[in-house]
Amino acid sequence: MSGAPAIAALDWGTTRLRAWLLDASGKVLAERRSDDGLITAREKGFAKVLEGHLAAMGAPQALPVIICGMAGSRQGWLEAPYVGVPAPIGAILRGAARIESERRDVRIVPGLAQRLADAPDVMRGEETQLAGAGLPANGRHLVCMPGTHSKWVVVEDGAVAGFGTWPTGELFSVLSAHSILKQSLGEHPAPVAADNPFFRQWCEQALGEGGDVISKLFAIRAAGLLQDLKSEDAAACLSGLLIGGEIASATRRYGFSETPVVLIASGALANLYGAVLDLAGLPFRTVDADEAVRAGLIEAACENGMIGGAA
Amino acid sequence: MSGAPAIAALDWGTTRLRAWLLDASGKVLAERRSDDGLITAREKGFAKVLEGHLAAMGAPQALPVIICGMAGSRQGWLEAPYVGVPAPIGAILRGAARIESERRDVRIVPGLAQRLADAPDVMRGEETQLAGAGLPANGRHLVCMPGTHSKWVVVEDGAVAGFGTWPTGELFSVLSAHSILKQSLGEHPAPVAADNPFFRQWCEQALGEGGDVISKLFAIRAAGLLQDLKSEDAAACLSGLLIGGEIASATRRYGFSETPVVLIASGALANLYGAVLDLAGLPFRTVDADEAVRAGLIEAACENGMIGGAA
Repeated sequence: MSGAPAIAALDWGTTRLRAWLLDASGKVLAERRSDDGLITAREKGFAKVLEGHLAAMGAPQALPVIICGMAGSRQGWLEAPYVGVPAPIGAILRGAARIESERRDVRIVPGLAQRLADAPDVMRGEETQLAGAGLPANGRHLVCMPGTHSKWVVVEDGAVAGFGTWPTGELFSVLSAHSILKQSLGEHPAPVAADNPFFRQWCEQALGEGGDVISKLFAIRAAGLLQDLKSEDAAACLSGLLIGGEIASATRRYGFSETPVVLIASGALANLYGAVLDLAGLPFRTVDADEAVRAGLIEAACENGMIGGAA
Repeated sequence: MSGAPAIAALDWGTTRLRAWLLDASGKVLAERRSDDGLITAREKGFAKVLEGHLAAMGAPQALPVIICGMAGSRQGWLEAPYVGVPAPIGAILRGAARIESERRDVRIVPGLAQRLADAPDVMRGEETQLAGAGLPANGRHLVCMPGTHSKWVVVEDGAVAGFGTWPTGELFSVLSAHSILKQSLGEHPAPVAADNPFFRQWCEQALGEGGDVISKLFAIRAAGLLQDLKSEDAAACLSGLLIGGEIASATRRYGFSETPVVLIASGALANLYGAVLDLAGLPFRTVDADEAVRAGLIEAACENGMIGGAA
């Protein structure tokens, strides 16, 4: 049996928005997915876009709203200033910024900043997935959140110790659309399957190169000229090379943990990264990315006193 | 005193064409630079484009023509089949393909193919620069030819032993125009100076990472958000990161030679790569790329009996 709506939770990114109506236990009562990301919302107005989606889900008038993602950036609705790392995950969530509104209580979870001179980095949204991943309160944990800009995070005793970004998804898109590899991959690269032998072969090669991916990129083009590599297999080569390179690079930087890598991902990405972690001989456990962000948003609502601690 | 024209020499690439009228000693009597690369010439017709440039330089009716570059590719005028490495440089030049023409003797120098299962690679045009770089007949030499697709070549006792491609120039263009770094670099990235402190700093960081460049790309964006990095300096960061990464990766693959690295380059690229080789502590000597390709084309004309051995 579902309870009454306790909170509306939004993952509000640059190009997409996902919204859920949740009861106090975190159960999903309604869901919306749309292209009303930051770019669109800047034109339409953030409050108007939000109220539209809340109305479509039948949200009560005064229901509180918790948001994570790029809506909290300087170009977003309201800047939720970065929390510097190292930082305990609970403290990050408690830093939510509050939108001035008579209508309802709306808050945005802050992103994280790593202010190191030689490794500056930022994230917005992934800190909430991290909070919802059910990490143990103690020990050192290495977390991988693949995507357009994959994040790897080291969590020590419930605090974010450090993190890094590998723009793997973006590189795949940009190189397939705008580099010489376009000729190899064709106009519309097919989705890559984790059991494609080219994916596995190029991935294994990349795993042995410590993150040096660039020296292998042109080989995909050359393999098309010299080895009759087909376009669907060329996409698998590029994907294997980039993901293998990411994992080689991230484990070179952060070393290994005694506990399994925590892979926060869904669907096809979860399969591809799982296959590569297997090839690398790294134990891992997968946490569904959608479930993690919802759990993190509820956690944030609790930490900010927007709902009771029932979750 | 200049002699009579002995040969017309062309470096005919994908987007550009450079043509010279040379006497038998290699002295330049006339020069043309144009955008009539392979792409344009496929539409206009290769013979017509060639004759137009020869006429503009006042070339005699039956003057022989030697060509290198993408004009010899499958998409070019006539495919000059790849020569497989390892191969002596003289033997490569002697493999020039002959255009069937009553008008004059026109030949195209073949490119090189490295048919290794795990490192397939190709080049067209750089083999001619290499031939004209004045390498000693003996010993092991590491050659760097920077550009859109930088080539590194190992030459042993006058033969090409192996080579690799680093798409450094292409990555700089594609990432500045189409990735998130566009926001950091701005619409029209300024030319990067070799003494820019950001260029040097990011280069030194990259030199220590063995070719792992991708883990540092997003840091340029983050430095803009957290460290007020300016757009002209962001371009210097990206350039330093990519070139430093290339040199770290290439020397990791090929090791060091007892002889100085041979840098075949001109102008701004020669300055940037020279600065990075200095930072890496690698002795080098620079050969002007234009002079090298002309000398290589004359060498090819000699090897194919198109002119006497006077050069």
